[in-house]
Amino acid sequence: MQPKMTAEAVTAFLTSVFPLAAGFVQIESVGPMVARLRKPVGAQNLRPGGTVSGPTMFTLADTAFYVATLAMIGPEALTVTTSVTINFLSKPPGDADLVAEARILKLGRVLSVGEVTIFSDGRDDGPVAHAAVTYAIPPKR
Amino acid sequence: MQPKMTAEAVTAFLTSVFPLAAGFVQIESVGPMVARLRKPVGAQNLRPGGTVSGPTMFTLADTAFYVATLAMIGPEALTVTTSVTINFLSKPPGDADLVAEARILKLGRVLSVGEVTIFSDGRDDGPVAHAAVTYAIPPKR
Amino acid sequence: MQPKMTAEAVTAFLTSVFPLAAGFVQIESVGPMVARLRKPVGAQNLRPGGTVSGPTMFTLADTAFYVATLAMIGPEALTVTTSVTINFLSKPPGDADLVAEARILKLGRVLSVGEVTIFSDGRDDGPVAHAAVTYAIPPKR
Amino acid sequence: MQPKMTAEAVTAFLTSVFPLAAGFVQIESVGPMVARLRKPVGAQNLRPGGTVSGPTMFTLADTAFYVATLAMIGPEALTVTTSVTINFLSKPPGDADLVAEARILKLGRVLSVGEVTIFSDGRDDGPVAHAAVTYAIPPKR
Repeated sequence: MQPKMTAEAVTAFLTSVFPLAAGFVQIESVGPMVARLRKPVGAQNLRPGGTVSGPTMFTLADTAFYVATLAMIGPEALTVTTSVTINFLSKPPGDADLVAEARILKLGRVLSVGEVTIFSDGRDDGPVAHAAVTYAIPPKR
Repeated sequence: MQPKMTAEAVTAFLTSVFPLAAGFVQIESVGPMVARLRKPVGAQNLRPGGTVSGPTMFTLADTAFYVATLAMIGPEALTVTTSVTINFLSKPPGDADLVAEARILKLGRVLSVGEVTIFSDGRDDGPVAHAAVTYAIPPKR
Repeated sequence: MQPKMTAEAVTAFLTSVFPLAAGFVQIESVGPMVARLRKPVGAQNLRPGGTVSGPTMFTLADTAFYVATLAMIGPEALTVTTSVTINFLSKPPGDADLVAEARILKLGRVLSVGEVTIFSDGRDDGPVAHAAVTYAIPPKR
Repeated sequence: MQPKMTAEAVTAFLTSVFPLAAGFVQIESVGPMVARLRKPVGAQNLRPGGTVSGPTMFTLADTAFYVATLAMIGPEALTVTTSVTINFLSKPPGDADLVAEARILKLGRVLSVGEVTIFSDGRDDGPVAHAAVTYAIPPKR
């Protein structure tokens, strides 16, 4: 199955319907059942100790899976998260971008289920977080 | 087991070490193994459709469990989230506060494990989100 | 909302359509959005160290939420688990029953979402496991 | 990092300390941070509708991650599951083996965190279940 939207089309759609999400990340690429996003880290993303906050990584995981799903099903702003499990694996340094790789495992009529792995750019000792994500797809009008 | 810190003491601690978290919520109360927080909802917390965004509810759940745990163990800024599972149950309206009730189920030497239930203030048809949360407690120096 | 089935009716239904599940547990009670089950522990439920195995507790949580949901919606054998997050809190001794308390947080048209707390009978130091559970309800024929 | 145990060594260890787990599955292979297991499906693994039960898939995911972790750290029977999130993606037919691929994402001193993807042997339309798993590693004596 090929995506119905390019990275540029998803970025334009997000910018129009959800500007906060569009400003939060850069969509690097989308492909069949996958998407790759980059999150530049700033002061407002840090927590005590100078590492990236959990909510920043959650937002990145949630957005990455939204993008992977939108690219496959086409522009459906009302697609909503129903469930996320996120495991924080190691503390990402506050001076490197985060990179998220989203992968859809099952794209059904009602639910899109998959996972997102988050890396700290330039580190090669494994991911910093991993999420299992489920989105509900609104019924066709 | 009684908490080691009052709601006021946790608020003062958060304000000093994690001002972003302190500005995000109001700590209404803490008690033995529990905490109650309030999140006023603003435009930056909304998503398409005018409901509260998933990251806002995640941040509230994460912060509420941090507060419940800090109140029990005392000021340990480096206590970090290791895992969160959040289920989004219904769409909270964008014009009402969120209220979070955190409850610790197991407070061990290394991990604090529990749950957070989030309500939309003034609605009586059940919670809008529920999270299972685990925090790692840093070893004593 | 009152349940459509009693504990006896759910037990009879399970015995007819899912005898393995019926033999696994005893349904102690059902009520509005809740159910309470008891699991007698035997040698086949233990793991190294003499404590109850994770799969035994998972099966109990899964069954307890199935029972709570069936009682509310009526006999629908094809109701299936879509997602479970289970946190193991402390090791239950191998010589005590387990007791599960299931609670539905959101009973929608398509999904039933809630939680199950598992105790070791006779221990008063908190639950031994906690699960967040989602079931899919089959469409009406 | 290379595993400390072969598939045969893990099988022998399981057979000696946890015969129920050893009888439940076949360990096909272990490698650096990974393991692959096969579960022959029998009548006791089915649920109404003739598909494989959730507890069977949970037990397979839990065992597969236990095997992947044991192979890396060496024989530590008291390594225990602390948390599992399992998403059921599609109903596996009752007449095909299940195959589980476990992957460790972070092997720390205290926790092993990763994921398990379960396939129905011979089907090529994606996994039937996916789990995020955390094990606690006992302290060295």
